[in-house]
Amino acid sequence: MKLLSYAIGGAESWGAVTDAGVVDLAQAVPACPTLADFIGSPDFEQRDALLAGRSGAVIPLHDIRFLPVIPRPEKIVCVLRNYHEPDAGPDALPPPAFPPIFLRVWRSQVGHLAPVIRPRVSTQLDFEGELAVMIGKAGRHIPAETALDHVAGYSIYNDVSVRDWQRHAQQIASGKNFIGTGPFGPWMVTADEIPNPSGLALSTRLNGETVQSSDTSRLIFDVPALIAYCSTIFDLVPGDVIVTGTPGGAGFTRKPPLYLKPGDRVEVEIARIGTLSNDVIDE
Amino acid sequence: MKLLSYAIGGAESWGAVTDAGVVDLAQAVPACPTLADFIGSPDFEQRDALLAGRSGAVIPLHDIRFLPVIPRPEKIVCVLRNYHEPDAGPDALPPPAFPPIFLRVWRSQVGHLAPVIRPRVSTQLDFEGELAVMIGKAGRHIPAETALDHVAGYSIYNDVSVRDWQRHAQQIASGKNFIGTGPFGPWMVTADEIPNPSGLALSTRLNGETVQSSDTSRLIFDVPALIAYCSTIFDLVPGDVIVTGTPGGAGFTRKPPLYLKPGDRVEVEIARIGTLSNDVIDE
Repeated sequence: MKLLSYAIGGAESWGAVTDAGVVDLAQAVPACPTLADFIGSPDFEQRDALLAGRSGAVIPLHDIRFLPVIPRPEKIVCVLRNYHEPDAGPDALPPPAFPPIFLRVWRSQVGHLAPVIRPRVSTQLDFEGELAVMIGKAGRHIPAETALDHVAGYSIYNDVSVRDWQRHAQQIASGKNFIGTGPFGPWMVTADEIPNPSGLALSTRLNGETVQSSDTSRLIFDVPALIAYCSTIFDLVPGDVIVTGTPGGAGFTRKPPLYLKPGDRVEVEIARIGTLSNDVIDE
Repeated sequence: MKLLSYAIGGAESWGAVTDAGVVDLAQAVPACPTLADFIGSPDFEQRDALLAGRSGAVIPLHDIRFLPVIPRPEKIVCVLRNYHEPDAGPDALPPPAFPPIFLRVWRSQVGHLAPVIRPRVSTQLDFEGELAVMIGKAGRHIPAETALDHVAGYSIYNDVSVRDWQRHAQQIASGKNFIGTGPFGPWMVTADEIPNPSGLALSTRLNGETVQSSDTSRLIFDVPALIAYCSTIFDLVPGDVIVTGTPGGAGFTRKPPLYLKPGDRVEVEIARIGTLSNDVIDE
């Protein structure tokens, strides 16, 4: 099932996406005002019955505004790079010994079709297409062997980065948290439909041209390894998002660099999930 | 005024600390279920009248459990080091060109007198006494000149760090977010009582012995500069916390290193605010 958060008439809601359109589920589950609440609740297991009971009321997709799939995750844990680059040749970086994680604040997120904002302090805005993992079942010290039991579903993230600010210090948080730089969507696909998140083709297109192309089987630290590592540090809770890293091809690695500018359209497509599309505007 | 968040009988509340004890203010301001709500509300300006109206009902300090001053900040922005070290001699690092910021998740926080937890995966647990700034008035692109207008008050943070995990990657988030490593308290002192956050003596004691001693006039990036920098990246909102960095003397910089172990007591004292005290236990 495809689940999403959306706004209509200024009100925030969540529901399912079907071939016919969007079906609101929030009204059917008053105990779960947000999608994060739902994927952590026992009601999540009843989603097929819930959807069947509501399928009479369908909202056309063009009537909604997509919100970030989880609009306000408690934690957004991102991973630097994290893809084996078989074609990188002698420029290839050695794989790190541990997952290089950093944090993003939810306020930086935007939904599918919402603008990515190039801040007025920089012209070095860059794309990073990534697989996003939504935690559904809380846990700490989760072994990799059972880690996928904690996943509610998968989505797409564009970890848009302000490269010069990212390099202000050894810590990159500055360049990874600007308002309007965290496209996340359009929806999540529940984990029952993607029992193994390895082997999903991932590509990023800039104005229609492919600029990143890889496959989640090339993740250095795969989804179970990332869940195990993060849960050693903190409790993972429903709605937490792990953004798993990006393959080669980001704009700053190119000669000359290829940065995003107003009017650009950046799309990230992941097989079996969909396509996340955002246009760039100036702040 | 000293404001705090606390628990009593399992229920979370917030109020003021007076010489007589704790005065609950949450009941007087139903629109503000949390202290973060209050410091961002117009009611905050009425705090003296609110306190006067409630001062008949005083709870002894020993009846409450201190919570982190802001239990669940939307953002906790921490700064690496950030103190000029006049005594560091040739080992002194050059001051950075930009504030080296990173993020902490609220789930890592603990209140005054609550245990700091040494995780089972490390023995390299370390202290960092710091001045914490509570944002009361939202803003973006805040000039340094007016930045202090956005501050509701000041508190104390111990940015306890797991040094080996901090070094897992160039990004230090791993070592800065373990459960039970973010002591924050005991209370905040409202900004009217500290019109200038420079010049506050800061010291950290380990089992009674002073291990860090400095003064906030030695901050490389002072409070207004940090607010200006952070607000260039994102909206600052009420309850956001900026943890301003730590002076020299942290355990990992010593030869041999001086790490925290179960049974240790670590105290951070800042003039005009108070003393934050926490004992260390094993996970």
